[in-house]
Amino acid sequence: MNRRKFNLGLVTTVAATLVKTTSGQPGLRVNGARIDAHLAALSEFGKNPQGGVTRLAYSEADLQGRKYAMGLMREAKLEVSVDLVGNIVGRRAGNEAALPPLVIGSHIDSVPEGGNYDGDVGSIGAIEVAQTLSENNVKLRHPLEVFIFQNEEGGTIGSQLVSGELPAKQLDLPANSGKTIREGIKILGGDPARLSEARRKRGDIAAYLELHIEQGGTLEAEKINIGVVEGIVGIMHWEVTIEGFANHAGTTPMNQRRDALLAAAKFIQAVNSVVTGFSGRQVGNVGKIQALPGAYNVIPGKVVLTLELRDLDSAKIEAMFAKIRVEAANIAGSTGTKFDFKQTSVSYPALTDLRIRKLIDETAKGLGLTTKSLPSGAGHDAQEIARLGPVGMIFVPSIGGISHSPREFSRPQDIANGANVLLHALVKLDAMKL
Amino acid sequence: MNRRKFNLGLVTTVAATLVKTTSGQPGLRVNGARIDAHLAALSEFGKNPQGGVTRLAYSEADLQGRKYAMGLMREAKLEVSVDLVGNIVGRRAGNEAALPPLVIGSHIDSVPEGGNYDGDVGSIGAIEVAQTLSENNVKLRHPLEVFIFQNEEGGTIGSQLVSGELPAKQLDLPANSGKTIREGIKILGGDPARLSEARRKRGDIAAYLELHIEQGGTLEAEKINIGVVEGIVGIMHWEVTIEGFANHAGTTPMNQRRDALLAAAKFIQAVNSVVTGFSGRQVGNVGKIQALPGAYNVIPGKVVLTLELRDLDSAKIEAMFAKIRVEAANIAGSTGTKFDFKQTSVSYPALTDLRIRKLIDETAKGLGLTTKSLPSGAGHDAQEIARLGPVGMIFVPSIGGISHSPREFSRPQDIANGANVLLHALVKLDAMKL
Repeated sequence: MNRRKFNLGLVTTVAATLVKTTSGQPGLRVNGARIDAHLAALSEFGKNPQGGVTRLAYSEADLQGRKYAMGLMREAKLEVSVDLVGNIVGRRAGNEAALPPLVIGSHIDSVPEGGNYDGDVGSIGAIEVAQTLSENNVKLRHPLEVFIFQNEEGGTIGSQLVSGELPAKQLDLPANSGKTIREGIKILGGDPARLSEARRKRGDIAAYLELHIEQGGTLEAEKINIGVVEGIVGIMHWEVTIEGFANHAGTTPMNQRRDALLAAAKFIQAVNSVVTGFSGRQVGNVGKIQALPGAYNVIPGKVVLTLELRDLDSAKIEAMFAKIRVEAANIAGSTGTKFDFKQTSVSYPALTDLRIRKLIDETAKGLGLTTKSLPSGAGHDAQEIARLGPVGMIFVPSIGGISHSPREFSRPQDIANGANVLLHALVKLDAMKL
Repeated sequence: MNRRKFNLGLVTTVAATLVKTTSGQPGLRVNGARIDAHLAALSEFGKNPQGGVTRLAYSEADLQGRKYAMGLMREAKLEVSVDLVGNIVGRRAGNEAALPPLVIGSHIDSVPEGGNYDGDVGSIGAIEVAQTLSENNVKLRHPLEVFIFQNEEGGTIGSQLVSGELPAKQLDLPANSGKTIREGIKILGGDPARLSEARRKRGDIAAYLELHIEQGGTLEAEKINIGVVEGIVGIMHWEVTIEGFANHAGTTPMNQRRDALLAAAKFIQAVNSVVTGFSGRQVGNVGKIQALPGAYNVIPGKVVLTLELRDLDSAKIEAMFAKIRVEAANIAGSTGTKFDFKQTSVSYPALTDLRIRKLIDETAKGLGLTTKSLPSGAGHDAQEIARLGPVGMIFVPSIGGISHSPREFSRPQDIANGANVLLHALVKLDAMKL
């Protein structure tokens, strides 16, 4: 991924404007039961026998889900098209044709054996907002675009392609479905030869709002209705190789071993200590490990493992990594091993717009909901769209903090609350000078 | 493997007998240069381009190596046959036809990308001893059998089959070469339908002596010529499964994780602490590990790893394991995980005969060599043959303690020393009442 830090605009006072715009239909509400029904219907496409969904980008289930979503968009009186990179766009005209569009949306592709809320809530929620506006004859100044971005789970592909470029090499990598991104774009109705025509530039959108499940357990644990997202964390990945010496596990005395897995064990604990030693919400993970040659009776001579660090502040990620390297050097010294770090991916933090954060917070409170500001530890399409204009994200509670799992769940009332915040924040944004 | 503890006979005083037998040809010596040349010639069969050898049991290289070894046996005036389980047997008559044979030997199959000393030294050394006896017209009371056991590296298969039974199921498992043991026996010239006819019972051999490289670094480090092996350690294997909870590595706060890999890291360190906390030469190894689902951005929900413990004393292995389980329970409690231990193999220690240990020690010292008693951390055919009669093992230094590697090396002089100890210990044993 090729994400840049979004430059914040100045914080301007917009209270006066807000009062004027929302005074029109303060009682306006989405239809929570309809959202529920639509989520249930969408969950049929790629449903797993054991629960949850496997709706991999570019798969048959993805195509079916997209067809269903396009039907809902048409019911919401949106003019539906598929852009040249394969994103679904549902458009509604605004009163002032010269204005750039306000954009809302999310994705409907899933991870393998994923759940029915990640992406789906924001997609169905955005369509519901359009439907509510339409049913209540609310006209906006700005055109409205509802986006369902393609292949979010494969690395926010659709939103990256609309806001920037992907290296040709990456287009030819197989996605989870086995198809390459290039093939996938064709399958979805895009044209890999004309990707640049779909690309937008800064200022081409007025703002972007995304509703999403938290995917963590903070809102539920603290009994908060709405999360106001401060930004999407930066993510850095390293492949760590530890070289020891493979030898006979029966004949080599304990004090003569250069055991790469023992060094790795100390390293994994050091990562945990360093990450938890900083104050804040940063996280670190060692998710994958291989010991070579990998036999009961051979002392591991080599270990390859992965390291991931995330935070809203790149400087903190760098500081954690620097400390981890010091720890690794100490471990190398005490175990007779050698550590090598290869950075395999960098994605910089993308902050949400300060004005929009404030707007979401005030809107939620105006609807009688409690709020909490928090970072998004997961990546989202909003991080890519931040290159085109100001973005904001609304989180609703995830029960048990479980995500990317068939056990992923968000309560219908929480989802309806989130969609109502999206609706009213959108209406208020429309009235603002952006 | 299905190894039982060998019951020690009483230690009897044999000094008087020894003096009489060795007084005959005290200057008798093997031809070290010839051993060297034969090891070099054998190393051609299965030679790796990058050094060392891959002479997997039942492979073409194995067949070529066996053909070469049988040729050497014939030159040594041994009567060569392949028994019904596929072992090569070179026999020499004794003066007293009623006596059971004295057996010497080892194996010539290797691990994948192994070295040229493990097994080869004992096989070529045993043939050289027979050749030396023949060239010097030394007649023994007992018949002599030189065995080259098949598939030692696949689990001491040839020696197990000659001293006991293998489950039918195990015969059908593929060996390193891809062929099953059953197929392998046929390839080598045995008959899988008549295995029991090759089986011997306790008392069918007078004694067994095996020359082998140490495979550890103790003798070289302490500048000792000859290792007198106290026994072959018992080996117990467990598969350890650690269950945590797989979750999103970005959205799950550090204090809400049930990270199975963090628990595994603590466990690996605990294994090391427990094993090194006992006094003695016991060893423990975690050689294989898998974290599931295994991705940069998912907290490992499950880890499967292997645990191996070895010692000459089964009770100590059990005591170490009990302590490790206590540590695991503590780690489970502090990390919110669950440990499960499944024992996957048990092989009990096999002690060498006390009289033979003493004999080897005295013989080496009589040749002007230094000695040290030590356990064998590796498995050997001797551990199986211990079921049939008293066994002894002679170790020579491994440079750097490296084994199962192309870098495996033992000095020609050390090998010649070991073969001379084998020769004279054999001659003395022949004179003893066994």
